[in-house]
Amino acid sequence: MSEAWPTAITDIQPNRVAVRGYDIAELMGNVSFGAAVYLILRGELPSEAVGRLMDAIVVSSIDHGATPPSALSARTVASTGASLSQSVAAGIMSVNQHHGGAIENCARSLRAIVEAAEAGGHLAEVAAGHLDDLKVSGKRMSGFGHRIHSADPRTARLFELAEEAEVCGHYVAAARAVEVEFAAQGKNLPINVDGAIGAILCELGFEPELMNGLFMIARVPGLVAHVTEEKARMRPMRKIDPVNHSYDGPPARTMP
Amino acid sequence: MSEAWPTAITDIQPNRVAVRGYDIAELMGNVSFGAAVYLILRGELPSEAVGRLMDAIVVSSIDHGATPPSALSARTVASTGASLSQSVAAGIMSVNQHHGGAIENCARSLRAIVEAAEAGGHLAEVAAGHLDDLKVSGKRMSGFGHRIHSADPRTARLFELAEEAEVCGHYVAAARAVEVEFAAQGKNLPINVDGAIGAILCELGFEPELMNGLFMIARVPGLVAHVTEEKARMRPMRKIDPVNHSYDGPPARTMP
Amino acid sequence: MSEAWPTAITDIQPNRVAVRGYDIAELMGNVSFGAAVYLILRGELPSEAVGRLMDAIVVSSIDHGATPPSALSARTVASTGASLSQSVAAGIMSVNQHHGGAIENCARSLRAIVEAAEAGGHLAEVAAGHLDDLKVSGKRMSGFGHRIHSADPRTARLFELAEEAEVCGHYVAAARAVEVEFAAQGKNLPINVDGAIGAILCELGFEPELMNGLFMIARVPGLVAHVTEEKARMRPMRKIDPVNHSYDGPPARTMP
Amino acid sequence: MSEAWPTAITDIQPNRVAVRGYDIAELMGNVSFGAAVYLILRGELPSEAVGRLMDAIVVSSIDHGATPPSALSARTVASTGASLSQSVAAGIMSVNQHHGGAIENCARSLRAIVEAAEAGGHLAEVAAGHLDDLKVSGKRMSGFGHRIHSADPRTARLFELAEEAEVCGHYVAAARAVEVEFAAQGKNLPINVDGAIGAILCELGFEPELMNGLFMIARVPGLVAHVTEEKARMRPMRKIDPVNHSYDGPPARTMP
Repeated sequence: MSEAWPTAITDIQPNRVAVRGYDIAELMGNVSFGAAVYLILRGELPSEAVGRLMDAIVVSSIDHGATPPSALSARTVASTGASLSQSVAAGIMSVNQHHGGAIENCARSLRAIVEAAEAGGHLAEVAAGHLDDLKVSGKRMSGFGHRIHSADPRTARLFELAEEAEVCGHYVAAARAVEVEFAAQGKNLPINVDGAIGAILCELGFEPELMNGLFMIARVPGLVAHVTEEKARMRPMRKIDPVNHSYDGPPARTMP
Repeated sequence: MSEAWPTAITDIQPNRVAVRGYDIAELMGNVSFGAAVYLILRGELPSEAVGRLMDAIVVSSIDHGATPPSALSARTVASTGASLSQSVAAGIMSVNQHHGGAIENCARSLRAIVEAAEAGGHLAEVAAGHLDDLKVSGKRMSGFGHRIHSADPRTARLFELAEEAEVCGHYVAAARAVEVEFAAQGKNLPINVDGAIGAILCELGFEPELMNGLFMIARVPGLVAHVTEEKARMRPMRKIDPVNHSYDGPPARTMP
Repeated sequence: MSEAWPTAITDIQPNRVAVRGYDIAELMGNVSFGAAVYLILRGELPSEAVGRLMDAIVVSSIDHGATPPSALSARTVASTGASLSQSVAAGIMSVNQHHGGAIENCARSLRAIVEAAEAGGHLAEVAAGHLDDLKVSGKRMSGFGHRIHSADPRTARLFELAEEAEVCGHYVAAARAVEVEFAAQGKNLPINVDGAIGAILCELGFEPELMNGLFMIARVPGLVAHVTEEKARMRPMRKIDPVNHSYDGPPARTMP
Repeated sequence: MSEAWPTAITDIQPNRVAVRGYDIAELMGNVSFGAAVYLILRGELPSEAVGRLMDAIVVSSIDHGATPPSALSARTVASTGASLSQSVAAGIMSVNQHHGGAIENCARSLRAIVEAAEAGGHLAEVAAGHLDDLKVSGKRMSGFGHRIHSADPRTARLFELAEEAEVCGHYVAAARAVEVEFAAQGKNLPINVDGAIGAILCELGFEPELMNGLFMIARVPGLVAHVTEEKARMRPMRKIDPVNHSYDGPPARTMP
């Protein structure tokens, strides 16, 4: 008989399911899903403010309409008669380097910048040097500028909540230094929502390779909604135009 | 040029991403992820108590250790060198009729019982008759009894929070009637966590076919944790024993 | 320790891998892939003519350009930076009732028609009755007519090879009877390639639920080619128009 | 309207589906599936001997029992009630660096060795040097030795057919040189079936990154067989032991 292999995530006992040591029954009603996500991925419960920040991060990425490849592949698979889990899985499979990956790529840059600054560099110079290095190797800085959004209110809101949670430090400063350097170069490339998430997740101590996982967690509700809508409203096997669609849901409204 | 096809989920405008009419930037920090999930799937914001209940529902299903097929298929795929999204997708693909499906199956039964009772039947008799019908057609009632948990505290907690949100009605009553009928037949088959979720989601007006979607949303963090642990702690291409594993994480502890 | 669970497909012994009893090393060079597919799915080696027919069936479905949902979902996932296996899997996940499923649906109809005719019905009347029944229940007969191809040479070729293999019997006759009935109704709906495959696979004794599996086997090379081309020729994260593409490969040529 | 995007794989015209310029109807019955796979991936029809070799390559990898992760993940997903395409896709998703990848890894090594030898090195010394380099960087040479098979008859058969097709050249020589060097080091690590395929595919001009694609093409029939067997013979949601299974199919037999 093979030896038992170890896992440190969840302990299953009769009438007790405990994640990282905490009985799920105790967590229910006492912590939000964002806080529970933090717990299962990091191993410890967050403070209340960080839990709220985690909810805000996943809420910020819950959906981005029908254009992203995750929504398109989920809808394409759904239109062939696939089950919900199959269609949602096809959406998840689109979350990779070029979709969702900006968070992780930006985080890697910010970590490199912070490391170099801590080794004695001047932050602004280090940031400028990092941009030069990227350019030389034919790469772009992720997490800055956006095709559609020039002043994304989600970004401002994230930093506001990060301030409230008192987590802003070196990585947010590094992101600001990059933004300033771009401006000095005459480029209007403000931090976008992916860049803000990347900086804040660095502050919270997440490893870059986990960040795409957070994006998946955040986007599944959107994918479930797209697949359900595709099945309910559209005929099977349609050719799904990736651009030419229009919103016909509730008009703009504000919270009560 | 083809006509624009419609979607009612998310409106993308420059500097405004609105889900079901609400600007995501406004939702961030003001609603939990559970409430945002309710919004994107149902089209309206829930009350604060229902939002809290939604968080509790997804927290209750965030993980169930390394034994479920979703964890096993995610780990098996991860062990071949697959990416995070590929591994998580393999886990999602295991959420079907026999894994996660108890919620939906139970909900269908409860809806049938409530419908028959509303058509003039006596609830206890209708419930007993439904169990007879299932037996005759060789099926089992989903959502009652559990291989491991005889008195799952998650179930009690869910009903407690549902009471607080004042949503308990006909479907919870139908679930209780089934439990009573099982007891009258000498069977110890209490409502389990899937049955409780099924009953409560019926009360909240969710369609049964969406319920497996909620289970997927809930379980993705667990899958991300399993895949990350598999890659970090285990050697590639190992043969993963589905039973013989042991928990070596933090010992039992309570919330501060 | 759990009991050994049984499998009847492949026996692995030191220096001997045997499929359905035949050493793979003996099969190599002696049978085509089509014949090996027949062996692993049906349990017996086919005659040489049936093996050739099997090759023709899978060759006939090896690809249908960039428009089918399997090619589109594979390319969409590939464009996000996914691996080859992830992208091909997304393509496979599109093979369902509405894509590839016409083979199986047609086969179910032909089996129903043959069964009714064998129970004493007159073939032409039974076929006409089946079409009526489908119409009443709001369904369409699968495997007849095609959006693009009015006289698909693949269909004629399949029947030619099936004749050579001497497998044409009741199911091909039933398909012809349906074609004749459509013509009598003034509808130009000839058997298409899916219908021909469905009829021939019925003759070969395949269960309908396996037929979509044959379509997957046939289409994987096409998916590998599409994913490879997408990665080699196209920029990442492009919006893939499902209609507006054009062929720029080798011009029409004939075999030497 | 967006510009048409190009594809060089398959041209769809009314009543003409042409792969790389060849009408599929003409290919059917005239070439095996192995030859058609070569055509769609390489752009040209192979010679008859190379077509036969291609069939042998894919036949050699059609299945390897219930132990590989592709069979296990396909069966695990199938056991939850998933569809055939969903289950097969889960199997495909397991074909990565550590499963199937030995072909590609071996090919990369052989290409490096051949390149160095062509640049003026002595083959035996270059091969020995390559093994040293791998050891220094903590890697293993792929495609040599096997956990179960010490003298795999599939390997011998592949080289036999490759000789017949007159394709053996520098890459096969490089593989032999590695084998000889291992023997000189006192290690019994003969070329295994993956190494033989890798060497032969190099001879045929396949790029290494396509080789895992060939493995997927080869293995899908096995996956379809495993999923079908799982659904037919096993109860849902069983815990699938990755080791403890036994073969109960037809006993060893030889071709007629």
